[in-house]
Amino acid sequence: MNKPKLTIVKIGGNIVDFPTALNQFLNDFHLIEGNKILVHGGGKIASELSKSMGIEPIMIEGRRVTDSETLKIVTMVYGGLINKNITAQLQALQTNAIGITGADGKIILSHKRKHPSIDFGYVGDIDKVDNTKIIALLNAGFVPIFAPLTIDINGQILNTNADTIASSLAIALSQDFQVQFVYCFEKKGLLKNIHDENSFIPHIQIGQIQNLINEGTIVAGMIPKVHNIELAIQKGVQQVRLCHASDIFQIIQNHQPLGTLFTI
Amino acid sequence: MNKPKLTIVKIGGNIVDFPTALNQFLNDFHLIEGNKILVHGGGKIASELSKSMGIEPIMIEGRRVTDSETLKIVTMVYGGLINKNITAQLQALQTNAIGITGADGKIILSHKRKHPSIDFGYVGDIDKVDNTKIIALLNAGFVPIFAPLTIDINGQILNTNADTIASSLAIALSQDFQVQFVYCFEKKGLLKNIHDENSFIPHIQIGQIQNLINEGTIVAGMIPKVHNIELAIQKGVQQVRLCHASDIFQIIQNHQPLGTLFTI
Repeated sequence: MNKPKLTIVKIGGNIVDFPTALNQFLNDFHLIEGNKILVHGGGKIASELSKSMGIEPIMIEGRRVTDSETLKIVTMVYGGLINKNITAQLQALQTNAIGITGADGKIILSHKRKHPSIDFGYVGDIDKVDNTKIIALLNAGFVPIFAPLTIDINGQILNTNADTIASSLAIALSQDFQVQFVYCFEKKGLLKNIHDENSFIPHIQIGQIQNLINEGTIVAGMIPKVHNIELAIQKGVQQVRLCHASDIFQIIQNHQPLGTLFTI
Repeated sequence: MNKPKLTIVKIGGNIVDFPTALNQFLNDFHLIEGNKILVHGGGKIASELSKSMGIEPIMIEGRRVTDSETLKIVTMVYGGLINKNITAQLQALQTNAIGITGADGKIILSHKRKHPSIDFGYVGDIDKVDNTKIIALLNAGFVPIFAPLTIDINGQILNTNADTIASSLAIALSQDFQVQFVYCFEKKGLLKNIHDENSFIPHIQIGQIQNLINEGTIVAGMIPKVHNIELAIQKGVQQVRLCHASDIFQIIQNHQPLGTLFTI
């Protein structure tokens, strides 16, 4: 029996922080047919709110150190402001969005990050995705919109990387669906030449990734993103597309070969 | 055919603002058997956050005037902080809570308040409750936790009174369920003598309400609350219990006659 199709799209700060770009993206996302899930990152709004309240954000290795005050802020900004605004905008378009976090329905269970030397505070690493509850929401006609928060076994909300949430959902739901995982970022794909936006590599098989790192095509902040994608494919996601958010309609509805397609 | 039972509980600031009281309440709420829904108010946290950001809250006739900055704050505090903390605490107890607003699934459709002389800003008055989506969530095993926000036809989020959300849900869902509507507030019930906590009137038929107002038993801020309850009963809710949150377990699970029961 063929598994039903499911599209999972992840967007980050380059969309969430810019109302015009977000609006354009949501118009495109609305037009994607069939089962779909959106995962959004946090962007800069949490840092701005922190500062307006006199709390200076602390980042280590690109991750926000989350003390109890910062956890309140990200719960408000990610789980409230951003998540509900996206949901309301999609509802205006007649997409039946429901804005949730991994804490709702205990859908994404995580544990507080253990690190030998750094205390990241209330930051979660994912243990388990509860497919049955996501399927129940999809079957009820909802389009789940996930904010980057999860929950531990004791009911502690944890700040969790949106890339990891998206890939964990894609991996878990590959058991039940033919998952198309679209990973939006600020470039048009993985670029051969960082100065040429149109030099994106159309197709990468995961066996080539180490070479691309060795030869310097995949560098710096792209390395963890690509490892996330590699892991998703190793764990059963059939294809992952890395692209610019503005290309998703052409990619998904018109099957245009934009962005970088990763496969086995 | 008998309609299935559904318990709807509304809590306000006297619970939401106090972690120990909230914790005790959630332990009791967790123990309520069968289909249930919780509606929470906003409490003082939004005003405190406003002030910490240099925005002075404006209240007219007990309602928060909601300009665009204040709407952001209530979306963060009601839809994010309070809603997700309640959800996470219930999940810790193994109640399968899902934290939503009336904007999610466009479950509660409202319009911006029209008033002859006061501009309340982004404040919503409810037009319609979408029962089918609530039933889908209940059937999927979720316990919906509603923050006091709704949405208009254009996708505008609107700040909406939690009492009205609770009674609108109770009225709409009475079509499909035998609704037990429990309205928690800071007293043990409607008091004959405001200075005696135990002087609560055990049973009021809605026909008696006007007399109780005329003779001064129902006064001031209680009048709109009681009118809300009266309307709920007139529109098909079989019974409404007005009580202190600390009594809900005794009332619902042990059928103790605490608080004031309103009936036709």
